[in-house]
Amino acid sequence: MRVLGVDPGTAALGYGVVEERATAPVCVGFGCLRSPAGMALPERLLSLYRDLQRVVKEYGPSAVAVEEIFFCRNHLTAFAVGQARAVALLAAAEAGLPVYEYSPLQVKMAVVGYGRASKAQVQDMVARTLGLDSPPRPQDAADALGVALCCLFSRQTLARVEASRE
Amino acid sequence: MRVLGVDPGTAALGYGVVEERATAPVCVGFGCLRSPAGMALPERLLSLYRDLQRVVKEYGPSAVAVEEIFFCRNHLTAFAVGQARAVALLAAAEAGLPVYEYSPLQVKMAVVGYGRASKAQVQDMVARTLGLDSPPRPQDAADALGVALCCLFSRQTLARVEASRE
Repeated sequence: MRVLGVDPGTAALGYGVVEERATAPVCVGFGCLRSPAGMALPERLLSLYRDLQRVVKEYGPSAVAVEEIFFCRNHLTAFAVGQARAVALLAAAEAGLPVYEYSPLQVKMAVVGYGRASKAQVQDMVARTLGLDSPPRPQDAADALGVALCCLFSRQTLARVEASRE
Repeated sequence: MRVLGVDPGTAALGYGVVEERATAPVCVGFGCLRSPAGMALPERLLSLYRDLQRVVKEYGPSAVAVEEIFFCRNHLTAFAVGQARAVALLAAAEAGLPVYEYSPLQVKMAVVGYGRASKAQVQDMVARTLGLDSPPRPQDAADALGVALCCLFSRQTLARVEASRE
């Protein structure tokens, strides 16, 4: 299983691709898509959409993972995140990929094993789990790898539970 | 000038097309795009996106108008509206159309001439202005025609102001 994790934002959209291997998950790639600040919002969203379509094509993931967001400091932020998130969901649907959503708590539990872990702890564990020398930069990419790992782990757990029932 | 107004929502996305004529604006078409309730969100957004692309192709507007939204009862609503709005912005950008945004106050002032007009008053004036026998249904379509009319009127005013300066 190869999972594309996405951390949606209008200015910067982080992505990270992880793959299941026999011994440990590996990092296939990560990065951050940026849309030119001077551009109008519709063109920014279109630029992110096309870039994300290219990422999907390049890495050929079998699933897409995004963080569920229940809380935002203000409505404008919720609005902006919703718009960037739609871009990710559209790109996934267009490629026929299933989308899995995880709460920030689920991501922390899966990656660090502790639901109140800090952002820095999550990023540190992402790097260790994937055998990277240092936490991936920028932070959006590290966050995207975190949710991708969470997806990989929870699908593995689900598969084990199902196997034990058979 | 032919304007496509959009009232974004995930379950129902209203649209309305108005055109500038020598005597009065005319209604070219309106309707409401619906996404199947049982579908997952990514597929719903993709379904709306494709339907809206078809609407753009069918009516060939020269601009797209959407309402700016500053306030939502809760973050989840802001989120959902943001996601549906992104679909409209993407479809506009993809077709190379300019997007104009208007506040609810601007729409009411343009259509009714009174900033505290009720929804029913706006819908009634939309019907009268466009010479329709009754307010368009569903409400999402009427709202979309309202924002399209607001765009038409404000672009006309702008053109007059510019002409008088020359």
